[in-house]
Amino acid sequence: MSKFYGIGVGPGDEDLITYKAVKTIKNLDLLFVPQSKEGKPSLAQSICFKHLKPETKIIEKHFPMTFDKDLKSRAWDEIALEIKKYVELGKNVGFVTLGDPMTYSTYIYLLNRLIGKISIETIPGITSYAAIASSNNFPLVIDQQKLTIVPCTIAIEDVEKAIIENEAIVLMKVYKNFKEVINLIQKHNLEEKSLVVSNATLEDESICNDLQILKEKEKISYFTTILINK
Amino acid sequence: MSKFYGIGVGPGDEDLITYKAVKTIKNLDLLFVPQSKEGKPSLAQSICFKHLKPETKIIEKHFPMTFDKDLKSRAWDEIALEIKKYVELGKNVGFVTLGDPMTYSTYIYLLNRLIGKISIETIPGITSYAAIASSNNFPLVIDQQKLTIVPCTIAIEDVEKAIIENEAIVLMKVYKNFKEVINLIQKHNLEEKSLVVSNATLEDESICNDLQILKEKEKISYFTTILINK
Repeated sequence: MSKFYGIGVGPGDEDLITYKAVKTIKNLDLLFVPQSKEGKPSLAQSICFKHLKPETKIIEKHFPMTFDKDLKSRAWDEIALEIKKYVELGKNVGFVTLGDPMTYSTYIYLLNRLIGKISIETIPGITSYAAIASSNNFPLVIDQQKLTIVPCTIAIEDVEKAIIENEAIVLMKVYKNFKEVINLIQKHNLEEKSLVVSNATLEDESICNDLQILKEKEKISYFTTILINK
Repeated sequence: MSKFYGIGVGPGDEDLITYKAVKTIKNLDLLFVPQSKEGKPSLAQSICFKHLKPETKIIEKHFPMTFDKDLKSRAWDEIALEIKKYVELGKNVGFVTLGDPMTYSTYIYLLNRLIGKISIETIPGITSYAAIASSNNFPLVIDQQKLTIVPCTIAIEDVEKAIIENEAIVLMKVYKNFKEVINLIQKHNLEEKSLVVSNATLEDESICNDLQILKEKEKISYFTTILINK
């Protein structure tokens, strides 16, 4: 039976993909991808392309990056409709995401539009924060600790509340307000208990050992994550 | 250079292991494993054994399951010391865990004893909660939501607080006080927003659609997890 597959390819290191993801990619008839910037495939696509069979057709779609919710919503509606059409024609259609498809992925917008209408299978992936923890031998959470994952796109007061109230914290999407977030870490004396990593598992991975220097930068990588374990 | 490797083999489905984990397992000289119950290898070991080279030596150790912290601590000290000895003799020594080694794994006890003394590499794995979310097409977290992972071995009042205060919640280690936890879900009218899964990705995986029936059971599987997304 034909299906729509949402496939997590892991954090970026091509060896951190699962066997199940690779088997699924090898079985696709069609792969939907966001239109590439400057002709370059995204990281998730590059990892996926290594495993695609030659006859798999790539369908590029424009995914608008905008704050206009209606515009975005209409674009997702159209793409979902097209995916549905192909699955109903008997095609196995794939969509790949970096990290895990159920953790802050745009795949969820497609899933929510298609669930109950066609057969869907989702393949989990290693998240960036799990990869960062492992590659730095930095335990995420143990025993009776809670683990809280916070997208730093929320109000900075809510980021601070999460930092105060929890013992084990992952701060994601730090790029926009990184100076404010670093201020919070310094304010709560958590510099020694924190790990700041950009571009985890990639060739240009960088681990920041001096938050003050980081704070003085003009901008930081989109893929920057901070782990805190008190 | 010889190393101590902590290897996450994923949630149980043998295809949800990463290429990196398999490459690492194939390269081990020694594998430390907990003494098996009734001669049966653990699930993590069974997955690992498929990829071991024949000459890899298995070293069985008794890991006491007890509330006596001193006894436990001494056992971990001894095992860590033995691992250190082998790594210093030039051996690649492995320890495998189900799920992810940095997420509530006993591997962290060994890591904390050995860090800075020998070379250590940790390989991340797919967690049970990520696998459950994917295999049920149940989004864990999206947009500006925080995700909170709660071990239900903490006081039931703290479990309730986490359920009230967060939008996206994973309840782990539910087996002991599952009746109380289900009461909380019913009390806060979250039955429709919850997913209860035992033995995720395994042959005997079971998804519970009726919490009332579950509550009347005498006991439930050790590997039971509840996802909530409001």
